Parts: sequence; structure tokens; C-alpha cells
Amino acid sequence: MSSMPAAAVRAVDAPAALIARYRAVRARSRVLAAPLSAEDAMVQSMADASPAKWHLAHTTWFFERFVLAAKADYRAVDERWDYLFNSYYQSVGPMHARIHRGLLSRPSLAQVLDYREQVDARMADAFARGDFDRELQQRIELGLHHEQQHQELLLTDIKHALWCNPLKPAYRDDLAMTSGGASPMRWLRRDEAVVEIGAPAWPLAGDGFAYDNESPRHRALMLAHALASRPVSNAEYRAFIDDGGYRSATLWLSEGWTRINAEAWRRPLYWEEDLEREFTLGGVRAIDPDAPVCHLSYFEADAFARWAGARLPTEVEWEHAAAQVAVEGNFVEADRLSPAPAGALVGAASAAIGESFARTDLQIAAEAAPTKAADNTPQQLFGDVWEWTASAYAAYPGFREMPGALGEYNGKFMCGQQVLRGGSCASAREHLRASYRNFFYPPDRWQFSGLRLAKDAR
Amino acid sequence: MSSMPAAAVRAVDAPAALIARYRAVRARSRVLAAPLSAEDAMVQSMADASPAKWHLAHTTWFFERFVLAAKADYRAVDERWDYLFNSYYQSVGPMHARIHRGLLSRPSLAQVLDYREQVDARMADAFARGDFDRELQQRIELGLHHEQQHQELLLTDIKHALWCNPLKPAYRDDLAMTSGGASPMRWLRRDEAVVEIGAPAWPLAGDGFAYDNESPRHRALMLAHALASRPVSNAEYRAFIDDGGYRSATLWLSEGWTRINAEAWRRPLYWEEDLEREFTLGGVRAIDPDAPVCHLSYFEADAFARWAGARLPTEVEWEHAAAQVAVEGNFVEADRLSPAPAGALVGAASAAIGESFARTDLQIAAEAAPTKAADNTPQQLFGDVWEWTASAYAAYPGFREMPGALGEYNGKFMCGQQVLRGGSCASAREHLRASYRNFFYPPDRWQFSGLRLAKDAR
Amino acid sequence: MSSMPAAAVRAVDAPAALIARYRAVRARSRVLAAPLSAEDAMVQSMADASPAKWHLAHTTWFFERFVLAAKADYRAVDERWDYLFNSYYQSVGPMHARIHRGLLSRPSLAQVLDYREQVDARMADAFARGDFDRELQQRIELGLHHEQQHQELLLTDIKHALWCNPLKPAYRDDLAMTSGGASPMRWLRRDEAVVEIGAPAWPLAGDGFAYDNESPRHRALMLAHALASRPVSNAEYRAFIDDGGYRSATLWLSEGWTRINAEAWRRPLYWEEDLEREFTLGGVRAIDPDAPVCHLSYFEADAFARWAGARLPTEVEWEHAAAQVAVEGNFVEADRLSPAPAGALVGAASAAIGESFARTDLQIAAEAAPTKAADNTPQQLFGDVWEWTASAYAAYPGFREMPGALGEYNGKFMCGQQVLRGGSCASAREHLRASYRNFFYPPDRWQFSGLRLAKDAR
Amino acid sequence: MSSMPAAAVRAVDAPAALIARYRAVRARSRVLAAPLSAEDAMVQSMADASPAKWHLAHTTWFFERFVLAAKADYRAVDERWDYLFNSYYQSVGPMHARIHRGLLSRPSLAQVLDYREQVDARMADAFARGDFDRELQQRIELGLHHEQQHQELLLTDIKHALWCNPLKPAYRDDLAMTSGGASPMRWLRRDEAVVEIGAPAWPLAGDGFAYDNESPRHRALMLAHALASRPVSNAEYRAFIDDGGYRSATLWLSEGWTRINAEAWRRPLYWEEDLEREFTLGGVRAIDPDAPVCHLSYFEADAFARWAGARLPTEVEWEHAAAQVAVEGNFVEADRLSPAPAGALVGAASAAIGESFARTDLQIAAEAAPTKAADNTPQQLFGDVWEWTASAYAAYPGFREMPGALGEYNGKFMCGQQVLRGGSCASAREHLRASYRNFFYPPDRWQFSGLRLAKDAR
Repeated sequence: MSSMPAAAVRAVDAPAALIARYRAVRARSRVLAAPLSAEDAMVQSMADASPAKWHLAHTTWFFERFVLAAKADYRAVDERWDYLFNSYYQSVGPMHARIHRGLLSRPSLAQVLDYREQVDARMADAFARGDFDRELQQRIELGLHHEQQHQELLLTDIKHALWCNPLKPAYRDDLAMTSGGASPMRWLRRDEAVVEIGAPAWPLAGDGFAYDNESPRHRALMLAHALASRPVSNAEYRAFIDDGGYRSATLWLSEGWTRINAEAWRRPLYWEEDLEREFTLGGVRAIDPDAPVCHLSYFEADAFARWAGARLPTEVEWEHAAAQVAVEGNFVEADRLSPAPAGALVGAASAAIGESFARTDLQIAAEAAPTKAADNTPQQLFGDVWEWTASAYAAYPGFREMPGALGEYNGKFMCGQQVLRGGSCASAREHLRASYRNFFYPPDRWQFSGLRLAKDAR
Repeated sequence: MSSMPAAAVRAVDAPAALIARYRAVRARSRVLAAPLSAEDAMVQSMADASPAKWHLAHTTWFFERFVLAAKADYRAVDERWDYLFNSYYQSVGPMHARIHRGLLSRPSLAQVLDYREQVDARMADAFARGDFDRELQQRIELGLHHEQQHQELLLTDIKHALWCNPLKPAYRDDLAMTSGGASPMRWLRRDEAVVEIGAPAWPLAGDGFAYDNESPRHRALMLAHALASRPVSNAEYRAFIDDGGYRSATLWLSEGWTRINAEAWRRPLYWEEDLEREFTLGGVRAIDPDAPVCHLSYFEADAFARWAGARLPTEVEWEHAAAQVAVEGNFVEADRLSPAPAGALVGAASAAIGESFARTDLQIAAEAAPTKAADNTPQQLFGDVWEWTASAYAAYPGFREMPGALGEYNGKFMCGQQVLRGGSCASAREHLRASYRNFFYPPDRWQFSGLRLAKDAR
Repeated sequence: MSSMPAAAVRAVDAPAALIARYRAVRARSRVLAAPLSAEDAMVQSMADASPAKWHLAHTTWFFERFVLAAKADYRAVDERWDYLFNSYYQSVGPMHARIHRGLLSRPSLAQVLDYREQVDARMADAFARGDFDRELQQRIELGLHHEQQHQELLLTDIKHALWCNPLKPAYRDDLAMTSGGASPMRWLRRDEAVVEIGAPAWPLAGDGFAYDNESPRHRALMLAHALASRPVSNAEYRAFIDDGGYRSATLWLSEGWTRINAEAWRRPLYWEEDLEREFTLGGVRAIDPDAPVCHLSYFEADAFARWAGARLPTEVEWEHAAAQVAVEGNFVEADRLSPAPAGALVGAASAAIGESFARTDLQIAAEAAPTKAADNTPQQLFGDVWEWTASAYAAYPGFREMPGALGEYNGKFMCGQQVLRGGSCASAREHLRASYRNFFYPPDRWQFSGLRLAKDAR
Repeated sequence: MSSMPAAAVRAVDAPAALIARYRAVRARSRVLAAPLSAEDAMVQSMADASPAKWHLAHTTWFFERFVLAAKADYRAVDERWDYLFNSYYQSVGPMHARIHRGLLSRPSLAQVLDYREQVDARMADAFARGDFDRELQQRIELGLHHEQQHQELLLTDIKHALWCNPLKPAYRDDLAMTSGGASPMRWLRRDEAVVEIGAPAWPLAGDGFAYDNESPRHRALMLAHALASRPVSNAEYRAFIDDGGYRSATLWLSEGWTRINAEAWRRPLYWEEDLEREFTLGGVRAIDPDAPVCHLSYFEADAFARWAGARLPTEVEWEHAAAQVAVEGNFVEADRLSPAPAGALVGAASAAIGESFARTDLQIAAEAAPTKAADNTPQQLFGDVWEWTASAYAAYPGFREMPGALGEYNGKFMCGQQVLRGGSCASAREHLRASYRNFFYPPDRWQFSGLRLAKDAR
């Protein structure tokens, strides 16, 4: 058995593969934006979100600024984009205020798409000329992962934007509705061990891409614990609501209690007041009781776990489990754009929401169902929903930021956020790996964020 | 000589004239929106402003809701527009929050234009059928004036929206640049008199349209005073700046001093830091020293007047002077969309900004140039810039709101605002009259707002 | 009959009278502060209010800074007080931020009282030496009126401060409880006339003291109207509440509607939720149905008037009536510190709150009771409650600010506020006069503010 | 060698010892409050701080509510204190809003001190009667540690309160000024090991008191690293400032950069603009270059460490080092109430601030001075300044909150905060131990908070 993470198997892209990948990832952004009108692509519904048009422009600027402009005599497509489409790279220069991205009617979507084409053409020329040395190839690789991150944000941001519209328009009307039963939740026990997590520092040491915040690969002590076999379902979360979860102060972190009362949170972000329907990228639909619960803040995930007599897993626990399974699941490629029950793949029966679930079920399950070896594989670690962990987002021991402006990519956000793992129904499969660390603030819930339970071993 | 106001000459529209006027005003909105892309038409750059698309929809909804829907069996074009396009009529029902108007990518601009066409078609049918009784004809008249107000707001709001864009795009590139010298400022003296101001209450008593807030026509005591012959020019305002006007606490109202420091105001809203160029609907241009200064808050107008040893005129003083001149000037029909010097019409010489003007000039002018009878007509009372007055916006004695939901039109805003008079380069000529009362909050400065000086008589 | 205002009868103080008055006013501040502990005297319960200790210090600093320090070689008692106890005189220098006045544990109350004694001693010495010329004597006169204003603020500020304490402590336990019936409300009709209001400019033209904002005395046109014979009572206001006044959008100014909903205002500031008891300077007491309603914002006064089919009086209407009655009433000297029914003086019967009053009563009263000549004197114009007027606080025609730093006293606040007239149960009798203009912002309600109705004449 | 933490040596208090300790701790609060006037004791200078009077009352209420009131028929000294002096125990009932604690002029300081005496008398009676079973004795123990925490807060809160006063008054004028050189900073290297940290769960498993958040004692993997021999000094921090530390975006966490610019932070909280003097509890004094730098936010500590080419230590690293040294140092008992250089105890020479220190010195020191065995003991781990760690405040594996309302003590704050270790010059010696975890938000800097550097081993 190898303790190497799942993602470490892909070699550095040879130029041909890199070119192909560049084309594919860039084309994917246009596909994702295709259902949007120029007006849709301009909405910024809150400070944390960005307009789709901005995502399209910023990811393009990234290649222009960090790859093409590395050439001394490079002339920008339009030098004004440096100010408008820089996100947060202080080293590069001043930038347009994030909260005002939604005011940019100019450049138009058409201009931005044209900007994309011009940069892609310049990239193609440079590829053809063999202009990119190893370091620039690495930056291209980084730029592609960067663009994949923004593709997911484009989806979560437009979901929020459309939901803010009283008309509740769908992003697409042709999304597949799949259903299937949830498998019973089981506790998978693991013994104490010194394990290795993290990815070798790319590009110096690692064979496959990883962000700087996943490195270095290092030893950590994993204590004995049990991990839930699957994420928490909508039905289970409904039971928490029905049991008064949102009204019980002692279930909540102090900041969480303040927040849910200040903003009158009483259910997941996109659930309707009847607790029967939810807004999805396909419009308002019935909530599937067996699908993983989604669009929770860390506060809600943490409160649910406390209510269930459990806790959230740590990064070490999560990654150690994930390193042993393939990166498969309900990703953006499945074209559902909503979490689905595991049974959507295998076809199980489904109970109505809240009908048959009680808090004690989780505990009883743990007692009644000692894990058989054959069952000892967690489901849905990848895809469907990002899983909040108990770990604050912090530097690994020995962490080094990327050099230069790109060092601002991850490290400077290591404060006040929590790590989420595993990717979602809006993530690209090849963007993910066991060591991947996503991070958001505890109140954030517009991402496809859910949870999986864990427990200390007795 | 009659003391009736200038606007009172036009009779109530006969149906044919009303139909023609309906078509003309409605068409004008489309013309004003024509230079805007769907994206431009969606920008809401601050809470006080609305997207152009919203103006186009709201004015249409006004006819549908208050005219067409008066018929018992009326079926709405789309009943969801009642919520989205109600501005502030609490009596009609709940409404979409003003600050979120910029998030409405749906309905699209195309849908809104289609909505306009459908309502116009229904109106045309109803005109043809003679469906509109006298009361509904009056509501149509009101709706047309309402739409003209929003046409001006469309221009001022899009000016602000485009200015917020770091690219500083022009609304139109084909606007005429006109120049010409300012005439010397003279003091026009008037003796104490009991005068009549205001308009007869329309539609009961008045022959011509007037808003409820202009009525009733009533007696008022006008004290002896002198009124400036023209608005304050850019050159004169530049002298105020150069003399440290923005740094002298004692020139300012207390709230004004707090505001200009909190927001670092050091010049009119759209002036550039060099005090030589300003943003216009035609893009960034050189400031014309002879044109009326514009985009001032009440605080700035008041501070300038104090600096100049003068004050702002009262409503009574302003209206009494205006009732004696024709409603002519630089209106939206002139297609300048910027204030212009009086000399733009008559061709006088111009001094560079701030070059030859000092505070004492205003006083000296008053001494040196006793007004000759032939000169005793104030210039530019109408058009160019709205003129801040010293009068708080309040009910006239005997004021009655319109009945029903339309009673919310004017009266409920009679608190905390100041009256402005005379219209601007963005106002429709036929929308104006001597008794017209516009009103904004003291800090507001995104309207075409300037000032004219007055003085107590010695 | 003279149209001169009531206050114009007292001649400028001869030195002996001025010395006596200085002693009396200064002593009064100490008496008012006597029931307060050092801790009480430090509370600042909101930005608009100041700690009692600060009032005691600031009024003292006023004499030191504007009177004693006029002497060239003057040495301050403690030069640090210039920064701490300047309120808003930008011309004098920078000042401690208003919102932080409650943080000043030092100087202690004892030190502030000692500061008072030192300044009083220096003033006494200077009086004895005859140091004060006519101009300084006028500043002393101004300083005494200034201190009387702060005496009232000390009471309203401490009332708010104690009310904010969940213990609801009384300022004093020995305040007299007086009751008595309200007289019926009658409409007093007045014909149109050109009248004179305002005070001659003190000290140049006037015989008696008046603030600059009361001057100059000037002609104004008073239109025909009817004025209510007494202020609105608690019982009448209770009927407005019971009739759904706080839930009817169309009764309210737009800003008022926003405010009452944002802050959940459903009754006067100090009324308890049961609408039966209210917090007073004597602690929580039963509401007297016949006493004038108090602690209303302008929004509430305006909404009540609209509900009652009436309006608020203008300054001109109010002052013209007040100029004809003596300055007598329930002032601070009566030592009630709460509004009282007129009948408290003459002994009428009283109805339970809301029992017998309906909106139509006011209108019926006007019909049924044509005013007899003998009854044509309004009651309670002075004392009890400040009466909100329909007039925005603005400069009178010909207004001139006092020269120098004292020019910041009144003029710079002429924006966004409404005038109140007549003084309250917390005002000093000799501080008041018919021309006196108080001013607060529309949402303010911690002053003893009520209302009197007026109507346009038919 | 024992791996037990330093604090584990004291047995559970026998009643006699507990009584003595109760008296001593309670008396200490009164001593700390003695220099304060009733006015001083009422100041709340920001939402995070509380008035001294409130600390005195709340700690007393803690004993009354959680110890005395455990008896079924207990009658409260004053039942109103339950509302006023509950801090954040939602399980106990509603409470007075934290931000309004500074408005409570009543109860007076005298009343609060009387409340303390009454509760102490009741406690003494109950002690005498032997009323307290083992569980209540444990609550008393907890209450004493709780009070010691508030004693430190009383000092840090009053320091902030007095600093907010423009008079900059001293808390005490008799505090000792001690000086002495800083020892050279050396790197102490430690090898990778699985270590035990944390305290056994008190009272079930532990012999000595520990808060629930310190438990359970558990294994953790400590990686190889080097720890600085002493905290960072004022001189070293001055060099960071002089090198442009506050102007270099790339040194800062993103949130830190935003904060320091939004609030114009350019130096430690209490340093004066000249960087030569600082506000202390003894008033404004010269900064001692050799003393540990203090009143830093986490952002500043983190930025300094990055500038120095180092990082902050983790909890594991810190605690493992601290478990091997005695709990000795500059605590509140030393009566300095300011951090002091190590040399204050041993007398070393001192350099002027910023004179001889450069960023490279820290690195050079590590090269040039391989640690000799005899030197391998870190200095000043306890006392002087709380040391920010790289560890977010989170539950230890196996963490269990205390049962009942006391479960709200620590666990619900495990979000968004960072751990600090070691206590300060304002902490009680017997309150501290190696496993003690303090926690504050990253921007907080009104505690005595500094830092110690660490580095990954090469």
C-alpha cells in the first residue's frame, strides 16, 4: 500500500498535453457561460461573489499577466485590464474594488469574450513558437487550475445571483433530475497512526500539480476515530430542524448563534420556507431527502454535528481516508450541478424528508452496525458537496509560498477560515485530489458545502 | 399683467393631443435609452440611482397599474411586474427593495422593451375605443409628466453609473460642444410685495397640469431683495475653491462640514482632480469657465453663497421672477446634455477658470452696476442647472395630496429636503413651469444642480 | 395692542442685576445635578446626549473661554479643558469627539465642580473689579442663556440615561404628582394678516436678549387658519395608537415610515408596552390621560396631525398667538418635570386613556364649538411640552450670525431640522419668549416634545 | 522525566485551603480596583472591554449563581443582578447587552462592593456549615480561576479606558520602573517526537485544576523545529517598523493588511507616534528597548515573524517547551504591570531602540550560536507577555465541555480565534500552567500580547 495521495500519479504535462489541456479548460469556461445573457453575466449579488463576466476576464488576465507578460517586450491587449481584472495581487499593482465589479457594464461581455480569444490566440502562437520554458509551463498549469477554481465560483456565484432575483430564474432548464436512495450511514473506525498527508511541493518536488498550501507532505498523528460512511443527507438535516436545532443556543458556536439570529437563518441557504423545495441551478425543485445536504455554513455543519453527538472530521482524518479511494463521483462533468444521493448511481429506495430519522439513529447505527471489512470504504468523499472539516485553514509545517506575486495565491488567507475537502457537483474532476484544501469563512454558505460526521473512538 | 404662472396657458389635452403626446413622450424614453447596451441599462451605481432598464419598466408599469388596471377585468401583461416595478407606492402593495434593482438581469432589456410595446399597444387600443374617462385622461397626463421626470433621472443616473466605471465611457460621442462667454453677473432688485405663487390645484381648479405639491396658488410676502442675473459660473466656483472654500469651517453648515470631510469632497462631483476637466455625458472634457457650475450639493451651494457674501434665493423670490419670463433655455431638446454659458447663444468672450475672478467681484459688481431697467431680466432661470433654493421642501398652505395611491407621489417626501427650481439641460421643456418644485437631500449632487445668488436688500 | 413679542420687556441687565442673575443661574445647575452620583453624571446613553458632568463643565468653559479669556494675559484654570469641553466651536480649535464624552472618568465630578467654583470666583473678582465692558456683559448674558439651555438638556439627557438602565431608577423620588382634567380642545380661528414676528437683533437693536436665530424682526404673511386651544393629550394620542396609527403607511412621511419600522416604534419614547405607564424623572408612573403627550418625534407629531385631519402650525401662526399671552406655565420652576394637564391648575375631570376619544372628535369639536370671543386664548403655549411646528429651521430674511466664534452658535445648524416652540416642563421660565426657536431633527424624541394641531381655514 | 504538565502538582484543595484561597483571590480583586474612582470603574471604552465595576459584580454573581443558588431554597441578594451580571450564559437566561455595560451608573460601585461582601459572607457561612459537596467545591475552584481571569481583564480594560482619555491618566503612580538588558536571542532546536500535551480532564481525571479546553491530555506529533530563547523585544520590533514593515503588503495576511490600513495602524497599540514613549498603567513612559514588545495583534505578530524569516510556534511546540520549566516570571504579583526585559532580573546591558538590530540578525544569530546544552532553556515563557501561537483555537481530540451552563465557558468560542500562551505581567502566577490556553481574535491587541519566534528545522 502506498500512502501517496491519489493525485500524485499524473506526470508533468508534456507540451502537447499541456496545449490540449489549455484548450479544453479554456473552452469549458465559455461553455459554462453560454446559458447566460450579457445581463446575467454582470450581476454581483454580494461582495463575496463576482459577475460571470469578471470571472471570464480575470482568468484570461491571469494568463496574460503571469505568462505572456513575462516576455520583456510584451504589449498588453488592453493595458486598462490590469487594473480592472486584477483580483488581489498587491504586488502587481492597484486594482478595482471588489465590491464594484458589478458596475462594469464596459467592457461588454462581447469585449471580454473577444479578449479571451485574443489571449488564446497569443497563447497558441507562443505554444507554436515554443516560447514557454519550464517555469512558464508551470505557470500555465497553475493558470489552468486557477481557471477551474473560477469555473466553480462562476456557478456558485450565478446560482446566488439568480436566486436573488424574485423571478427565481433557472441557469439551465435541461439539467438532469436523478434520484435514488441514501445508503444507511455507518461509522468506519480507524486506529491511531502516524500518517503522511499533504502533497510534495510542486513543482520542485512533486510529480503532479498541487497548490502550495497542500505542501509539504508531512507526518501527522492521526488519533483513533470513526468516520461516517457518507455525507449527511437532507432528510437527516430536516430532522435537526424539526427537533428545534436552530432554536437551541447550546448547540451553536457563540458566533454562529449570533449570526443565525441576526440574519434569521432557519434552514439551508436555498431551501424554501416550506422545507420541501429548494432553489437549484435548474430552478426551484423538490428537495431530495436522500441527497447530501448542501449550502450550509460552518456554523450549521458544526451545530448539526453537536446535535448528532458527533463532530466534524479533521483534515488528517479526511485526507487519510480519501487517499485510499479513487477521485470519482458527482462532479461538474456529470452535468447535474446538484448533489445527488449515492443511490442515484446504484438505485436505492428513498424516505420522505424527516419522516423516519431521529437524532438517536446516528448513535444507534454506530452501535448496531459494527463495520465489516467489506464495507469499510467511505462513499462520496469526492464530488457532490464540499465537506466542512474541524480544521482551521493554516500553514502546514514547512509551508513555503510560491515565489513572487503568485505567493499571494493562498498563504495570505490563512486566517479565520475553515478547510473544506472533497470537491462538489460543480468542481472539475481533474482539478481535485485527496490533498486538495478549499477554505471559506464560517458564515459562508453559497458554496456547495455540506458535511460528513466523525467521532472520537471510545 | 397677470400674476398667473407661465405654465398655466396650455389647456387640458383634448384626446387627440393627449394621444399624440403619449406617443411622443413614450418614444422619447426609447430614444434616450438607445445609446445604452443591455449591460449599461442594468447598472445601479448607488442606492439613490436606478438602472435605465428599471426606469423604462417602472414608467410603463405606472400606466399599466394606474390607468389600464382601473378597468375591473384587466389582466396584467405579467403580474410579477407589480412587485418588481413598483417604486414606493405602499398602498399598492409590497415592492422589490430599491437597493437591489441592479441585480435584475431578468427581465432582460429586450423583455422590458417588449413590455413597453405591449402596454403602448393596449393604450393605443383603449385610446381608440375611447375607454378613458376624464379621470383616466388626467392620470395619463400625470403618467406622462412622471415619465419625463424619469427621463431626466435616466440621464443623471447613467451619468453617475458611467462615471463609476474606471474606463469613463461616454454615453454618447456626438454631443455638441458649445462655448460662449458668460455675461457679467448683476444684481436685480425687487421691492417688498404680497405676491401670488403656486399653481391652481390640478385637475380641479387648474387649466394646466401641475403636481399637487405646487398647489394651491396662494399669497406670500416677498421681502425686498436682489437676485443675481444668472447662475454662478464654473470660473466663479473655481475661485471659491482656490480661496480655500473647502477648508474653511465657518463657511459651512455643520452637516455640510462633516460630510465634505467624511467623503473628502474638494470640488464638484464630476470635476477631475486637476480642476481643469470634468466628466460629462459626452465623456471627459475641459471645463468651460463660463458655463454654470453644476453637480453641487446644497451644502456646497450654501457655502459658496456665504463665501460670496450672499445667500440662496427663496422659492417665493425665484418663482416671482420666473413667472415673468418665458420657459426657454438649454433643455434636453437642445441635445447638449451639459450646462452651457448664456453666451453660447449670444457669443461673448471667456476668461480662463479662476483667472480673473475674486470674491469681491460679486460685491463690486453690485455696487458698480446699478441695474438699468432694460437689463432687469434674469437669464437662464430655466434649463442648464437646477437652482438650489433656501427653502426647505414643505407643504404650501392649503396643500392637499392627490387622492388614493397617487397621493404618495409628492407629499410623503416633505421632510429634510431642499427645493430646486428651473430645470436643467436634461429636463424636457414642456415638463417645466415657473411653479415647478423639484426636491433633493442636501448632500445630493448627482443631479444637474447649481445655484443662483440672492441678497437681502439694504 | 403692541405686536412686540412678550420677551421684549426686560431691559439690558444693569451690572448688579447681571451679577445676581449670574449667581442664580450658575447655582441652579448645581441644584439640578445634586441628585446625581458621580457615576450618574458620567453616563452618555447615546451620541446625541451628553453626560451631566460634561454639561456642568462645558457651560463653565463657555464663560472662561468667551468671557474671562478675552483678557490678553488670562491664564486658564487648566488649559486641557479647552480640548475636552469645547462642544462644536471649530473656530476655537479641535475638540474631543462628542461620542466619547461618556468615557471621561477624569476629570472627576468633584474636579468639575471645583472648576465651576474657580471660574465663578474669577468671575466674581472680575465683576468686583468692573472688568467687563458692555460687550463682555453681553457675552455673559449669552452665557447664562446658554447655561439654561444646557440645564434643560441635562434633564432630558439624564432621563434618557436612567431609562436605559434596566433598573429604571428615578432621578428624584420627591417630584410632585399633580392631576386634573383636560379642557375640551377647541379651534381658535385667525384671519389672514401681514404680521411681524421675530425679535429685534440683540444686542444692537433689541432691548431684551434673543438669540441671533430669532432675528431680525420682520413682516410675514399669516394666512387664515385655526389653532387648537391646547396641546394634544395622552388620551388623544392613545386613540391614534388604538386606531392603528403606527401601522398605516399613508399617515406617515416616507422617512418616518422607514424609521418607525426600522426601530419598531409603536408608542411614545417612554411609554411602557402596556400603554398604561411611562418612565418619568420620578420613575415609572401611570400615564395621565389628560396631560399633553410627550416624547414624540416630528414624524409621530406629523402622522398624528394627518390622522386627525389637521396639520402642525407654522412658526408664524404659533408665534403670533404666543405674542399675546404671558410667558406662564409648567416650567422647571414648578418642579414637576413632567407635562401636566391644564386642569392641574384649575381642576377638571379626567377620562381614562383612549376611552372616549375618537378621530372624529377633533373635527366635531371644530364644528360644534364656534369659538366665542372670551375663549379665544390658547392654553399651555408655554411650558409642558415643546410643540413641533410645520416649519423647517431656517434663517429669517435678513438673518446675521453673531460675529466671531459665537457665530457658530445657531446658524450652522439650519439644515434638516424642524422648529419647536414654547418650552417645556424642563425649561426655565425666564429663558423663554414668544420668539424663541428650538430645533431638533425629525426623529429626535428624547426632548419633552409634543404637538398642537392647526388647520387651514375654510 | 515526567511528561505531566507543570500545573499538575497541586492537589485538589482541601476545604481549609479552598477557604483561604477563596479569601485571597476575592481580596485581590478589591485591591486591584482600589486605585479606581467610581467613575473610572464605570468606563467601557469599547465593546470588547467591560467596566471594572462590572468585572467586580460579574465574578461575584458567578459564585452566587453557580454555587450558592445550587441550594434549592436560595434567595438571591438581589434578583435583578441575574440579568445585569450574566455575561454570556444563554442557558441561565437573558442578559444585559454587552455593549451597554458602561451605561450602568446603578448599581453604584459602593453597591457592587456591598454585593461582594454579602456574597462573601454567605460563602463564609456556607463554608462554616460545610454546605459544599465535592461538586460545589469544584465549582468554587472554577469560580476562583474565573475571577483571576477577570482580574487580568480588569487591568487590560482599564488600561484601554484610561488611554482613551485625552488626559492619559495613570492607573497607579507607584509602579516600579525596572530595566535591564535583553539577552541575545538564540534558537533552541528540538527533534521530532510524539509528545503528550494538554491536561487530564478536571475534575474527573486531573489532580489539579484545568479548564475544559486544556483537556484531554493527548498525544501529538511535534516536528523538528527551533524555538527562540526569548520573546521579541521592543528594539527588534522597532527595526521592523523602521524597515517599512507596516507598508509592505506581502508581509501581511490579507485580513491584516486590510485592517492596518483601514485603522491606520503603524505601531503597537500604546506606542506614541514618536516611537519613543508608550502608555502604561503607570502613565506615559519611555519604551524600554529590551523589554518584550507588547499589545500586538496576531496580524502584527505574524507579519513580524514573516519579516524575520521565521514563524510563530504551534501550541504543541510551545507547550512541550513550557512543560519543562517552572511557572516563574514577571506576573501580576511582581507589581510591575508592564513587561520587563529578562535582564531586569539579571542585569544586562541595553541598546537604544532600533539602533543595532536588523532583520538578518535573527538569522545570523541562528547560524553563529549553535545552542549549547546549558543554554537550552527558553526564557520568559511565563509572564511578561502572552505569546501568540500559529494555532487556531480549536477543540483537542476527545474534548468534552463541562456539563450544564458551565459548558458555555470555553467551547462555544472555538471559532476564528488564535491561541496565546504563557500569561503576562497582569496574570496571577497560580492561575497559569503549561497547558493553559488563552484565545483572542486576530485583530485584538489590548491584551498584553507579544510573540516568540519559531522556525522549521532545516
